[in-house]
Amino acid sequence: MHFRYEGKNNAMKVSIVGASGYSGAELLDILLRHPNVTVEKVFANTSAGKRVDEVYGRFRGRTNLVYETLTEDAVAGADVIFIALPSGEAMHLAPRLATNNRRVIDLGGDFRLKDLDQYRKFYGQENVAGAAVQSAVYGIPEWNRAAIQKACLVANPGCYATSAILAVTPIVKEGLVEEKGIIVSSLSGVSGAGRKATVDYSFTELNESVKAYKVARHQHTPEIEAAVSEVSGRETTITFVPHLIPITRGIYTTIYARLRKSVTMDRLSELYAGSYASAPFVRVDASRIPEIKDVQHTNFCDIGFRLDEANGTLVVLSAIDNLIKGAAGQAVQNMNIMMGFNETEGIL
Amino acid sequence: MHFRYEGKNNAMKVSIVGASGYSGAELLDILLRHPNVTVEKVFANTSAGKRVDEVYGRFRGRTNLVYETLTEDAVAGADVIFIALPSGEAMHLAPRLATNNRRVIDLGGDFRLKDLDQYRKFYGQENVAGAAVQSAVYGIPEWNRAAIQKACLVANPGCYATSAILAVTPIVKEGLVEEKGIIVSSLSGVSGAGRKATVDYSFTELNESVKAYKVARHQHTPEIEAAVSEVSGRETTITFVPHLIPITRGIYTTIYARLRKSVTMDRLSELYAGSYASAPFVRVDASRIPEIKDVQHTNFCDIGFRLDEANGTLVVLSAIDNLIKGAAGQAVQNMNIMMGFNETEGIL
Amino acid sequence: MHFRYEGKNNAMKVSIVGASGYSGAELLDILLRHPNVTVEKVFANTSAGKRVDEVYGRFRGRTNLVYETLTEDAVAGADVIFIALPSGEAMHLAPRLATNNRRVIDLGGDFRLKDLDQYRKFYGQENVAGAAVQSAVYGIPEWNRAAIQKACLVANPGCYATSAILAVTPIVKEGLVEEKGIIVSSLSGVSGAGRKATVDYSFTELNESVKAYKVARHQHTPEIEAAVSEVSGRETTITFVPHLIPITRGIYTTIYARLRKSVTMDRLSELYAGSYASAPFVRVDASRIPEIKDVQHTNFCDIGFRLDEANGTLVVLSAIDNLIKGAAGQAVQNMNIMMGFNETEGIL
Amino acid sequence: MHFRYEGKNNAMKVSIVGASGYSGAELLDILLRHPNVTVEKVFANTSAGKRVDEVYGRFRGRTNLVYETLTEDAVAGADVIFIALPSGEAMHLAPRLATNNRRVIDLGGDFRLKDLDQYRKFYGQENVAGAAVQSAVYGIPEWNRAAIQKACLVANPGCYATSAILAVTPIVKEGLVEEKGIIVSSLSGVSGAGRKATVDYSFTELNESVKAYKVARHQHTPEIEAAVSEVSGRETTITFVPHLIPITRGIYTTIYARLRKSVTMDRLSELYAGSYASAPFVRVDASRIPEIKDVQHTNFCDIGFRLDEANGTLVVLSAIDNLIKGAAGQAVQNMNIMMGFNETEGIL
Repeated sequence: MHFRYEGKNNAMKVSIVGASGYSGAELLDILLRHPNVTVEKVFANTSAGKRVDEVYGRFRGRTNLVYETLTEDAVAGADVIFIALPSGEAMHLAPRLATNNRRVIDLGGDFRLKDLDQYRKFYGQENVAGAAVQSAVYGIPEWNRAAIQKACLVANPGCYATSAILAVTPIVKEGLVEEKGIIVSSLSGVSGAGRKATVDYSFTELNESVKAYKVARHQHTPEIEAAVSEVSGRETTITFVPHLIPITRGIYTTIYARLRKSVTMDRLSELYAGSYASAPFVRVDASRIPEIKDVQHTNFCDIGFRLDEANGTLVVLSAIDNLIKGAAGQAVQNMNIMMGFNETEGIL
Repeated sequence: MHFRYEGKNNAMKVSIVGASGYSGAELLDILLRHPNVTVEKVFANTSAGKRVDEVYGRFRGRTNLVYETLTEDAVAGADVIFIALPSGEAMHLAPRLATNNRRVIDLGGDFRLKDLDQYRKFYGQENVAGAAVQSAVYGIPEWNRAAIQKACLVANPGCYATSAILAVTPIVKEGLVEEKGIIVSSLSGVSGAGRKATVDYSFTELNESVKAYKVARHQHTPEIEAAVSEVSGRETTITFVPHLIPITRGIYTTIYARLRKSVTMDRLSELYAGSYASAPFVRVDASRIPEIKDVQHTNFCDIGFRLDEANGTLVVLSAIDNLIKGAAGQAVQNMNIMMGFNETEGIL
Repeated sequence: MHFRYEGKNNAMKVSIVGASGYSGAELLDILLRHPNVTVEKVFANTSAGKRVDEVYGRFRGRTNLVYETLTEDAVAGADVIFIALPSGEAMHLAPRLATNNRRVIDLGGDFRLKDLDQYRKFYGQENVAGAAVQSAVYGIPEWNRAAIQKACLVANPGCYATSAILAVTPIVKEGLVEEKGIIVSSLSGVSGAGRKATVDYSFTELNESVKAYKVARHQHTPEIEAAVSEVSGRETTITFVPHLIPITRGIYTTIYARLRKSVTMDRLSELYAGSYASAPFVRVDASRIPEIKDVQHTNFCDIGFRLDEANGTLVVLSAIDNLIKGAAGQAVQNMNIMMGFNETEGIL
Repeated sequence: MHFRYEGKNNAMKVSIVGASGYSGAELLDILLRHPNVTVEKVFANTSAGKRVDEVYGRFRGRTNLVYETLTEDAVAGADVIFIALPSGEAMHLAPRLATNNRRVIDLGGDFRLKDLDQYRKFYGQENVAGAAVQSAVYGIPEWNRAAIQKACLVANPGCYATSAILAVTPIVKEGLVEEKGIIVSSLSGVSGAGRKATVDYSFTELNESVKAYKVARHQHTPEIEAAVSEVSGRETTITFVPHLIPITRGIYTTIYARLRKSVTMDRLSELYAGSYASAPFVRVDASRIPEIKDVQHTNFCDIGFRLDEANGTLVVLSAIDNLIKGAAGQAVQNMNIMMGFNETEGIL
């Protein structure tokens, strides 16, 4: 059987480190179809030696790639390296790989928090990559496109963080709402928890149920606070509660913010439309409440909003696919920007 | 085939008006097993003439009841009448049935709001049963047991309302939190929408998706506000956002309230434990985040809480089965109280 | 909090060995509500010392039981012992417990196959309890009630086996169909796989998917063959293919059998109705195709059938709840029969 | 916002008639990304005047198309027309559209059965397009590629039919199995039922349940029989039982056939591999049982098989995505073949 893009000419070479998890597999799925790149190697220590399509049957007929054990030599040939490892691993790796004009995009948490005390508090370990953390660029293209273009090491945002930052930044930046104590109430599909062998994530335990977890202490809390504060110039704090719901893919975030002053739906529409005028993946619609099904298997983030005038509360709602705009799709969007490709290439 | 309770001696006679919807069917399920009652008649105009077990196959082998067309004569023999009709219908019916020592429990919205302007605003029609509305008793047993004991007409609370009132009343009553603008963010299974033939509630439209709806304008908003305000003596307002999630049964409510003063987890445990010391169906547990699966197919409401001290925000979480504690189970709990039965009879 | 049945007078004492798995928990759920018994002890070695309601939150407010480590002394006080252990463990235990007028009901596979070669082949180990296996009674009440009444050790049937035996026995016994090579095509909810920490049973792997497994080599194959052969007096063989589908509870079995001679739907109705005239939990309905939702959370088995006259094929369909009629409910039904209680006590 | 392919140069023009159903929407999704075509018009009488992205929010940011009322003038400009209407409508339309070198691909049932008596029996109406039915080509590319290349009117196969024909044809053609009375036991996701406002397809009725329907009388029965018989040259009959399961997309088909003579797994592998050597979308793997998740959102059909030697029965298993290989994807595959494009263009 022949594979469509195996013979792409002059294509840029990309490799994936940690390619056997859900985000890594989703990346591979996107990159195999991307017209400008060839996937050179995929690394996954525990699956090393296995064909990709043995671990993920859906890749049969699409690739002959075999998982390899990571070594610096093996990965050296790539122009762009994606790292999709559990937090705590990339910090040892990314700084060494992001050299010699090689670009690195890390999908984990190691390069997202400039404040290393916050990292220690929320990730439960020291971050040994101090300097690289400071020079890494936070990869939220809608608010940081210029820096991403020039970056060698991009910290791809967390899934919850993406859904919250896109929804909340315009109103904070504009000073419309009190920036302290914004409520971020999120629902996530189970693929966000990764590929794990535990009773807690078994079908029988999660199906037909809901549970909140890490209430007000999830590691995306400081990430959202830092990103919104930096872009808006206003020191923002949030109360973030994630909930696990029985779907495979998708994040739904409902934000509750206190209005500083009265505002109309029209003014809000204008504000969001202006904020995302050049963002091909953010769809703002005042007349429509977002639904996960509209963004599933896409790189879009849908945003809607409603006013509770009686209480002076603004409700903003956003939906993304946690594996795409919340992980692999956004990583490819960042690569497109870094490499000068069309921003939507391979992900529209 | 014989049926277990058909021959119950000296049993009280109950009838269900609107017995072909999901709440009505759940009621029948519970009442057929209840040791102190016999289900005399079930009414459902559109299904009149059909056997119950033709419409709901699960009743085969459990009852020979046939849906009847409602007339005042037909319903006259019952000691207790449950009404499970769409809002707007019971107002014409309940006042005439709740006479001659007959007790009526209405599962719809017609008798829940004393403020008829609110009824008009949220239900989109006039409430013609003014006097009966004022004398009806709001059936939240944990806060209104004494009045329910003496009531002829009980307004059974809404499903969302039940989950919110039980979670939020103790902290408002104690003055722990600002009572204006409390955030009530709820998730509901689809059975809460009733048995309807629409594309919107079809499997393909809802599975693997989430959507908020009636954002900050759902009819349970004034119900929650009125119930909490009355019990606590503090004028309370809420911003309520319901979300539809792809499960059949269950409501999960996450409440975000601003603390007036600092409080400890121990003090909160004490407060909730005290509030529900004599409530057999409320389970408070500071060490456990509620999960819908723990309350599904039960009349329990599970409550947990967490503090976000940095933001002075208290998060309270509650879970119920929308068809049981949120509808039929609570209706039977109310009946048990009204008739002097053990409060848990038939629902533990 | 008080518990409803903790003070049941003169109640028989039952204990559960292996009470922390799904079948064991379901048993406990049923037995706590059963009017004639008190659950004395629950054993679960890996959870020993934990409260039951810590492992299964749904039991909070219903029991104070604590899992204990199994010893012969500890279990000695029970009148009836249920064993819900993985296959291979009960063989060492049940023969020693089923003494001194104590009754034992084993929910695993160790006592289901009289043919020890079949046991070795399908369970992958020797069965060391030879004599006890021969004297154990196969607990399918609809076909074996008399023997169950006198049994000391009952082998509770497998979940798939129950759904198949009830559907297929009448037509084989009557000689209506070729008894060699009957097709048994079954679908099971995931709880049937037990409470396991593996990627294979994780939500993300199973949701929105289907897979067959152990095609034509599942261990219920010889169990079904033996049970049908014995009751019918005709040496029956089957091709059995189980499929895993994304629901929590339920088994759906579709049987394809070759007709020996032409038959009418009326004759089939008569045959099934006659076969199950005194079976309170089998519901036969020629006019209705079974649906899992009708039997979920019940001990019923629903049976329907259709003729494909052009091909001389009879299709029989059955549905059960795998945890109830397929495990815990049927175990209680067996107990009811063994102890002289009403067969439906606690499970209708 | 700009749309990726709106400016595709020299692209072929395609239109979709009946574009507001699930198959039509899936077609649009694929065709918007297809590099060789431009979607000129979409027709949907009941939604005429509405933007596509108003009915299906997922198309926002991807197309500005508006549903139009079908007229012959309006549709005249298209090079290829896809019809995705309920059966019974295309018969009036397709023959008139498939003229002037215009190609028509009908996704409904009207042109699938050459035997008009069968059509009347299974579709409950007369087929008035007799001549066109006889000249239409059945669009199963793996067995009919040459005829499809030259066809003006292609009857795109049914979803169940596709999954069965691909699995069963090789073994019948080879004479390995008895071709009379082959068992086809299929499971389908709910999107296969179309976009309908009925209680029967509501989430609450279908979730956590399973039901068989149209047992041995589904309209795909004669379609499968005719297709397999024609390709194999052996008069084949089947007993087909479809089941509805609670997933959105996917068909899983398990086939039970009686072996004429003994066969090995190796011989079967060889046979299937040979049959599909030039079929880019059929993946045969003797070592792997198919799973729906591997084919979801793809145009692949996965096939596996197992032998039950004791009963002389061969079990073949296949999985497809009902909306892609079972409808829209296969329609595009047919278009690719008809127009001389790469067979996998736009669907790999």
